[in-house]
Amino acid sequence: MAEYEHILVKRDGDTVTVTMNRAARRNSLSADHLAELLAAFREAGDTDATGIVLAGAGPVFSAGHDFGDVAARDLMAVRELLRLCTDLMGTMQSVPQVVVARVHGLATAAGCQLVASCDLAVAAESAGFALPGGKGGWFCHTPAVPVARSIGRKRLMELALTGDVVDAATALDWGLVNRVVPDAGLDDAVADLLARATRGSRASKAMGKQTLYAQLDRPEADAYALALEVMASASQLPGAREWMAAFQEKRSPVWPD
Amino acid sequence: MAEYEHILVKRDGDTVTVTMNRAARRNSLSADHLAELLAAFREAGDTDATGIVLAGAGPVFSAGHDFGDVAARDLMAVRELLRLCTDLMGTMQSVPQVVVARVHGLATAAGCQLVASCDLAVAAESAGFALPGGKGGWFCHTPAVPVARSIGRKRLMELALTGDVVDAATALDWGLVNRVVPDAGLDDAVADLLARATRGSRASKAMGKQTLYAQLDRPEADAYALALEVMASASQLPGAREWMAAFQEKRSPVWPD
Amino acid sequence: MAEYEHILVKRDGDTVTVTMNRAARRNSLSADHLAELLAAFREAGDTDATGIVLAGAGPVFSAGHDFGDVAARDLMAVRELLRLCTDLMGTMQSVPQVVVARVHGLATAAGCQLVASCDLAVAAESAGFALPGGKGGWFCHTPAVPVARSIGRKRLMELALTGDVVDAATALDWGLVNRVVPDAGLDDAVADLLARATRGSRASKAMGKQTLYAQLDRPEADAYALALEVMASASQLPGAREWMAAFQEKRSPVWPD
Repeated sequence: MAEYEHILVKRDGDTVTVTMNRAARRNSLSADHLAELLAAFREAGDTDATGIVLAGAGPVFSAGHDFGDVAARDLMAVRELLRLCTDLMGTMQSVPQVVVARVHGLATAAGCQLVASCDLAVAAESAGFALPGGKGGWFCHTPAVPVARSIGRKRLMELALTGDVVDAATALDWGLVNRVVPDAGLDDAVADLLARATRGSRASKAMGKQTLYAQLDRPEADAYALALEVMASASQLPGAREWMAAFQEKRSPVWPD
Repeated sequence: MAEYEHILVKRDGDTVTVTMNRAARRNSLSADHLAELLAAFREAGDTDATGIVLAGAGPVFSAGHDFGDVAARDLMAVRELLRLCTDLMGTMQSVPQVVVARVHGLATAAGCQLVASCDLAVAAESAGFALPGGKGGWFCHTPAVPVARSIGRKRLMELALTGDVVDAATALDWGLVNRVVPDAGLDDAVADLLARATRGSRASKAMGKQTLYAQLDRPEADAYALALEVMASASQLPGAREWMAAFQEKRSPVWPD
Repeated sequence: MAEYEHILVKRDGDTVTVTMNRAARRNSLSADHLAELLAAFREAGDTDATGIVLAGAGPVFSAGHDFGDVAARDLMAVRELLRLCTDLMGTMQSVPQVVVARVHGLATAAGCQLVASCDLAVAAESAGFALPGGKGGWFCHTPAVPVARSIGRKRLMELALTGDVVDAATALDWGLVNRVVPDAGLDDAVADLLARATRGSRASKAMGKQTLYAQLDRPEADAYALALEVMASASQLPGAREWMAAFQEKRSPVWPD
């Protein structure tokens, strides 16, 4: 693994855990921090790991962009920063692994965007979610993109326009996270959900995740055109062949990948 | 009505009930079964019935594709099977009737897709829903298409990536079904919802349903452009004229279609 | 302010309240009424107000189109009416102010569309929501457009096909409104939500709201392309500069706009 300054990367079995480790700066996303996260996701994406956990050290999950880093930038430099940030969000969706957010505290602005961009999310009861640009001077335009695709429109408007924090129970009700658990049970709940989400053939799962994002916001007929071709191809892969054979022979499958 | 081997088709008043009748194969969707379902929906679509109920015989609603049928197929033959399946799902949305799923047991993979593709769905408390490809070797790519358009993104990811069964109460909370009732009340609940959904002018309802699907996943301005033209045309139909006249004359309308 | 016959327009501090005032006609949306609402939203949109409340006088919020007005119209004249109505809905989304619906009674057909088209909505416990065209002779095609973008697909189908009224609690559960409060607390709840939603830099908020609608139903990558450029530009505005400076200097921001 590469050496990082702002994050910790640890592999344990089939899982890579990426931990934002700028607690003193509330895990805010400076350009250097974003670049390391992007590098770590790309690196993990190239391994045979099946799952990636995104976590944060210290009391806050992530406070979003680092104003100390943004304030000095001119237009072109802010575009560059946001491009880096958007690349990270896209990479979390394009890597073949299942990506789970482990949210233990406040996830605000681009921090909330990280949660929305993970495939799955588990929150501690103490977690909170906000798009605070709505009550300030720099609106959360890009964080609202994946949040809008996870929750309903009126709820997005409330989150984005008020800037208020919603608690974990509300985030669960709105569909922004998959589980809310007592803080002490957070690691177990993440491990359990990730274990469930990484069963089966590795190649099948990777194509599955990537195709979900590809079909999600297309018109239904276009989504079918894509999904049909992928599903037909996927039926010819060793994992599919093994699954059907095992089913017919009433035995457990042995995944070839 | 045509003669079928794998399904039962019955007309009762204004309702056609199509029952999957391969209980010994858990109502799995072999090519022959799919072809009969497609023929039955097309046939019912051409009648003056106002509603279609999709039900399943035996303990399972439908287990999805029949591995015995898929395993022997090469790429081109799987594409043909999936094309047939996708035609069925599209036909359920394009027929002029209101289509209600009556879900009494497990609805998995393409079985879950059937539920998502019906206009409305009523589930018994014992029902369960899953996209099991996620934990196996053949990912539920096409089933995920209509499911993604019924529930939120994080919930879709959980269903598709874990392959776990969610119960009827969860499906209701997520918006995959419209009603959950005790098993003994399932037929009554289906009949009640269908009766409510088939009142009024037949032509108006048919244009209404078809236009809903046509506008659903377009950009809002495109959806308005379409809905506006349809709604203007629809105002000139006998049913609309009668409704407005009856309203102004404070009498019950007599539907002309 | 202009003189209106069918509506009341009042400015109080930073808020413009537009009240539909055809109680005897259940605030139905005749062409004249729609034209006044459109003029009032355009007029309010050009002021420095930060919020607009849409309310209704009398027992009903709005019953939608006025059959007395529609019944006499030929195709071209209905198109003109619907075009006016659609312009109003679009204007509510394009004005720079935050628009909140204050819903105290039935909101049906285009009245329900008004609620769905406001950025935020607060409902009294006595409120009800319906797309009654579904059980009549003129389907609610255009009202279904913004409703479809606020709630899930199966719920849209139920609302649009049955024509039944759903109560305020259900509307909250489905995400059609943001708050449900006892009738006596409606004004306070509207004021509280609007105050929260109008904090911060005025220019930032206006760009924020408008960009949310622009990105909402685009494919995610297109939405990012747009949001990224807007967010980069917005970082250079006085409001953003002030916010970041205030944050770094640990003082309250003084909004320049």
